[in-house]
Amino acid sequence: VSEHGRINLIGIGPDGSLHITVAAATAIRQADVVIGYRAYIDQIRARLRGKIVLDRAIGQEIERAEEAIEHACQGRRVALVSGGDAGVYGMAGPLFESLRARGWHPGQPPEVQVIPGVTAAQMAAARLGAPLMHDFATISLSDLLTPWDVIIRRVEAAASADFIIALYNPISQRRVTQLPAAFAAIRQHRGRETPVAFVRDAGRPSESVAIASLAEADQQPADMRTVIIVGNSNTERLGDLLITPRGYFPQRHAR
Amino acid sequence: VSEHGRINLIGIGPDGSLHITVAAATAIRQADVVIGYRAYIDQIRARLRGKIVLDRAIGQEIERAEEAIEHACQGRRVALVSGGDAGVYGMAGPLFESLRARGWHPGQPPEVQVIPGVTAAQMAAARLGAPLMHDFATISLSDLLTPWDVIIRRVEAAASADFIIALYNPISQRRVTQLPAAFAAIRQHRGRETPVAFVRDAGRPSESVAIASLAEADQQPADMRTVIIVGNSNTERLGDLLITPRGYFPQRHAR
Repeated sequence: VSEHGRINLIGIGPDGSLHITVAAATAIRQADVVIGYRAYIDQIRARLRGKIVLDRAIGQEIERAEEAIEHACQGRRVALVSGGDAGVYGMAGPLFESLRARGWHPGQPPEVQVIPGVTAAQMAAARLGAPLMHDFATISLSDLLTPWDVIIRRVEAAASADFIIALYNPISQRRVTQLPAAFAAIRQHRGRETPVAFVRDAGRPSESVAIASLAEADQQPADMRTVIIVGNSNTERLGDLLITPRGYFPQRHAR
Repeated sequence: VSEHGRINLIGIGPDGSLHITVAAATAIRQADVVIGYRAYIDQIRARLRGKIVLDRAIGQEIERAEEAIEHACQGRRVALVSGGDAGVYGMAGPLFESLRARGWHPGQPPEVQVIPGVTAAQMAAARLGAPLMHDFATISLSDLLTPWDVIIRRVEAAASADFIIALYNPISQRRVTQLPAAFAAIRQHRGRETPVAFVRDAGRPSESVAIASLAEADQQPADMRTVIIVGNSNTERLGDLLITPRGYFPQRHAR
């Protein structure tokens, strides 16, 4: 236990093993306390012997952030773990929001460092070859904390300006209308043959990949563990790959 | 030398050392031939003893892809190296475009695998705390291969729908008007106090960070090694950090 505690916000990447960074693995090794959503903790369980491990249920992000602060204030080195990148829909936001609410300011204890990681969209893109090779927009379809009109406006804007689009949290058990609405909005701007990829559990043993045309995208199953990548007007399918040219050729898949 | 050659498209992350993934480091170790832009090869030089190293000048992406294919067709294990993520403005596009032009199809030799890495925008975001915590758009301002009207339309769309915006390649020696034009477009939709971060050489010893308001962003120096992150209407500055809440509060920095 060091004199002044610290919090490392650690993205463990898509699988916590092959695609974790050296810095993330090192920070976990040096931690006294490791806090995270249970599914992510399970991915790094073998790295945690001898540590205080607080594996928590989903949806308690603020509570996890508060726990991390409490342990750091007692002088411990805390690893606050996210899947993918802690800075992309991960624990970085809740932690800094909690610190700010306590009047914390950079330079004061606890010391906080963010250690980035490979996201689910990047892992999905790697499996697909080269879909994200041009400008892209990342959008979560979860309306738990964001009004739906903000979300659908972003989908429409991204579609209208021909961004490649990565959709997170497309569907949950009680939320099934957002994804068809998003596809309908995209179809207003992009051709029916535009390739759409569905990658579930990217980078894990349970990984699965499916590709459909935008016209038939509504028929594909998806859930909270699926990342969906919609090609831009230049993206071409080649077998089970999606290739977006790095150059731009106006409106190849124009509507 | 294996019987059938293979190409691993490797993203070495922002620095090639701390923020490289285990999978990327392993693939480099197992390679017979390592090909890449010289500045990235220099970041991993210590890993390359005993290998054929082809360190190339900037701007020869297709030539590098062709070299990789030639070596793989001779049965060698090739590491084709990009900074950041090979799938994000990296070598994945040129390689798959070159393979497709030769009539290659997935399943045929050479075997190709993409190994993702942490991007410059993610490393910049990590230094800044939590700027990318909500939906974001990634845009390159380089008009070398993309018409400017496509690029500025994307900036406008991203600004209008309140995306956090990460700008790559903002300025080069012969290209200085695009960044001011992008800021002017963003100011049409976002308040003057919106924080804008300039991170140069993110994750390297030469790293520098500057933060300005959108109103004063034009006064900040930038170059090809700078990633610029423009907050959304909810992003707040706290010292040298940018914090975007994970929840969404309509129009906090509205224009």
